[in-house]
Amino acid sequence: MELLLKPLQDLADKFRSLDGVGKKSSVKMAFSVLNMSEDEARAFADAIICAKTQIGVCKCCQNITSSELCSICSSDSRDHSIICVVEDPQGVMALEKVKEFNGVYHVLHGTISPMKGIGPDQLKIKELLARIEREEVSEVIIATNPTVEGEATAIYISRLLKPFEIKVTRIANGLPVGADLEYADEVTLYRAIQGRRDI
Amino acid sequence: MELLLKPLQDLADKFRSLDGVGKKSSVKMAFSVLNMSEDEARAFADAIICAKTQIGVCKCCQNITSSELCSICSSDSRDHSIICVVEDPQGVMALEKVKEFNGVYHVLHGTISPMKGIGPDQLKIKELLARIEREEVSEVIIATNPTVEGEATAIYISRLLKPFEIKVTRIANGLPVGADLEYADEVTLYRAIQGRRDI
Repeated sequence: MELLLKPLQDLADKFRSLDGVGKKSSVKMAFSVLNMSEDEARAFADAIICAKTQIGVCKCCQNITSSELCSICSSDSRDHSIICVVEDPQGVMALEKVKEFNGVYHVLHGTISPMKGIGPDQLKIKELLARIEREEVSEVIIATNPTVEGEATAIYISRLLKPFEIKVTRIANGLPVGADLEYADEVTLYRAIQGRRDI
Repeated sequence: MELLLKPLQDLADKFRSLDGVGKKSSVKMAFSVLNMSEDEARAFADAIICAKTQIGVCKCCQNITSSELCSICSSDSRDHSIICVVEDPQGVMALEKVKEFNGVYHVLHGTISPMKGIGPDQLKIKELLARIEREEVSEVIIATNPTVEGEATAIYISRLLKPFEIKVTRIANGLPVGADLEYADEVTLYRAIQGRRDI
């Protein structure tokens, strides 16, 4: 007996291709689908198609949206002169949860990564430049992740923005709140000291 | 802005309903679907429908199969007089990996669980009895999990099988290979001593 029936293995492989799903979990999920009613399974399949076909990107900030302009770009209560550049829509979600930032966003949809063969042209950088040329922008906050790729992308974009003579900032590095000096890595500690502020 | 677009939230909810998927993972998976091409998303949806519609249960052992009789039940090289009773198809998979058992299986599709409102009638127990009446069975090995529900189900089935006067056995409890006495729980240790064998 083949250990897993082909349609089940195929389904497990699809789950496996998702972000953060391992082999055992993928099989577990495939079995969960078998335990669904046929209606539930169809609703699940429809939800996939729905999400994929109904969600596009905002023509302005490139964040995901189901309309032409996302709710942030079309809002009058946001400060359209401050653009926060993030790697992905999850970044927007994370910052929106804080309810502190009142500007608008620009989603790059990735970072420059020679290892993965991703160059600046595959990111939404030209859309950002076009936006800055078109609109009155006073500050660009680069909020790519503090990883090697995120830093490289931040530096690349900051250089591109030099000619525009606008304020370009980078989110702070340092110790996360609640952390312990003892367990912080050296680079984080170094950056925390460098970025020290008067109290 | 609603933090998650509705079609995305709906899809995340579907993932959430799968076995072992938490809230954060479900959102991560929903985003993975957005990053697929439309063809990939359709193939994913098809795989769900395919698995659900093509896989049924074997009319003999109730294990999952894409034909009328599963490959184990239709095999001549297996000993059809020994039936190993397991909770679910995953149990068959686990035992088949060992390549030690040459009998056939019977899948209950659950365990008796008053807490979840699952009684003996919702399990494939009458199909097991019908099989034993119909076929020449010499031994029934009850291999439900060593949990409260699994034990209760094992005892229930063993009582039902009394009138047939066939050998009914239960898989052994004891220390898993590679374990440490220090970290074993008391019930397991007790069973390990009770089940001691001559060497």
